[in-house]
Amino acid sequence: MRLVSFRHAGANKFGAAVEDGIVDLSARTKGRWSSLREVIAANALDELRTMTKAASADVELEDVELLPVIPDPGKILCVGLNYASHVGEVGRQMPTVPSVFSRLHNTLVPHGGDIVRPRASIDFDYEGELAIVIGERCRHVSRASALSVIAGYTCFIDGSVRDFQKHSVFAGKNFPATGPLGPWMVTSDVIADPQRLELTTRLNGTVVQHDTTDHMIFDVATIIEYLSTVTWLEPGDVIATGTPDGVGAGRKPPLWMKGGDRLEVEISGIGTLGVNVVDE
Amino acid sequence: MRLVSFRHAGANKFGAAVEDGIVDLSARTKGRWSSLREVIAANALDELRTMTKAASADVELEDVELLPVIPDPGKILCVGLNYASHVGEVGRQMPTVPSVFSRLHNTLVPHGGDIVRPRASIDFDYEGELAIVIGERCRHVSRASALSVIAGYTCFIDGSVRDFQKHSVFAGKNFPATGPLGPWMVTSDVIADPQRLELTTRLNGTVVQHDTTDHMIFDVATIIEYLSTVTWLEPGDVIATGTPDGVGAGRKPPLWMKGGDRLEVEISGIGTLGVNVVDE
Repeated sequence: MRLVSFRHAGANKFGAAVEDGIVDLSARTKGRWSSLREVIAANALDELRTMTKAASADVELEDVELLPVIPDPGKILCVGLNYASHVGEVGRQMPTVPSVFSRLHNTLVPHGGDIVRPRASIDFDYEGELAIVIGERCRHVSRASALSVIAGYTCFIDGSVRDFQKHSVFAGKNFPATGPLGPWMVTSDVIADPQRLELTTRLNGTVVQHDTTDHMIFDVATIIEYLSTVTWLEPGDVIATGTPDGVGAGRKPPLWMKGGDRLEVEISGIGTLGVNVVDE
Repeated sequence: MRLVSFRHAGANKFGAAVEDGIVDLSARTKGRWSSLREVIAANALDELRTMTKAASADVELEDVELLPVIPDPGKILCVGLNYASHVGEVGRQMPTVPSVFSRLHNTLVPHGGDIVRPRASIDFDYEGELAIVIGERCRHVSRASALSVIAGYTCFIDGSVRDFQKHSVFAGKNFPATGPLGPWMVTSDVIADPQRLELTTRLNGTVVQHDTTDHMIFDVATIIEYLSTVTWLEPGDVIATGTPDGVGAGRKPPLWMKGGDRLEVEISGIGTLGVNVVDE
């Protein structure tokens, strides 16, 4: 099942993306939950699945405005330096534990939306990533049971302002509208193994990143074990799992994004997240 | 005016701390706002001030449970390495721009509450700090006008798990219940100059940090200018301004907090924030 958050006829809704459009699950669940995050917290994904199987689309995908898959996550945690190839290209030491930073939710951008290069910098870089959406409140989760707390998977772009990132990771990763998330969340029952996915980033149609998730230094289960040692994970929390090599900062000369560019991240089994680059 | 968030008779409220107790401003404003954050967003501090002047206490301070001054900030941003004496004691390079990280709001602890040493580490350190509460939505604020966007000031303890902080600043600063905030917010009209305050941290009654805020590397106005370059600041956002020397990690042998300890931070013109250390 592919779940979306979207805006239609003046209301924020959630639904399922099917062959011929979107099944409006907000309408079909009669307003019992106001967001996908609430659905996940209510452990109601099975109910949506049953409902979707019997349904055909209520509205065409082109007629809605998609929102970031989870528009209001309680937290957005990101793992940096998680592919050896990327650690090498940016000249950093190989990490022995996950390196974590967080994003504010005003950084999120939906599929089809605008990612904003800030006024303060031209060093604006892309990072295509696999993202996890957490399915339940949990802490001190063991690696062995970690995959069971995942509600689903989606694509993420960790838009990075490299000169500010030298000041602090937080600053480089938290300019507004620099974190596209979508287009939809594929529920975890569909993804048998998150370490067997293929990730491709394209800038203006040219492939700039291409790797497979088995090259992660810390796999998804290890990331969840580590993060849940530090803090509570909650339904709808988003965790980005790091980017492979090919980023703009690793090239000579550097390849920065600018207004008018088109950026896409495709992950096998999930789909393609596409956004337009605009200048602030 | 000294504003508090508190819990009384089963409800979350806000009020003013006066000579003989707390003026219940939630009751007196008849539920128009559900939190101090909403009051600030409504630009209603003057109305509360007028109301408080004419009032006497409705409830004694001892009869309520204080909450973190802003229980639900949209963001908690912290500046690290902002006193030269502290930069030196932890062996870091002098920063040329503010170094920023963020905290999750489940890290907040009220005055009188418990700060939690996590199960995962014994390297649990204190950092006494001056904190700002933002008064209005703003971006690209100049240094010259920066103080005008401040609603008030309070005390903060940036409880730090030092071994995890070596993994990433985020990890070391985001264990639950490690960030006491309070006891109250002193409104900005009372503090003529935030760079002329005296800060004292006491562990079990012994002074472990003592400095004045004129020793900040980046003053409050510069911090606001910088942060508002990166992102929108919003009413109720909390900004912690860094700690002076004297932290436990800078001592030989290191001085770590443990269950049973009593920790206090006092700032002149504001008051004293006190918490008990407990083990997870």
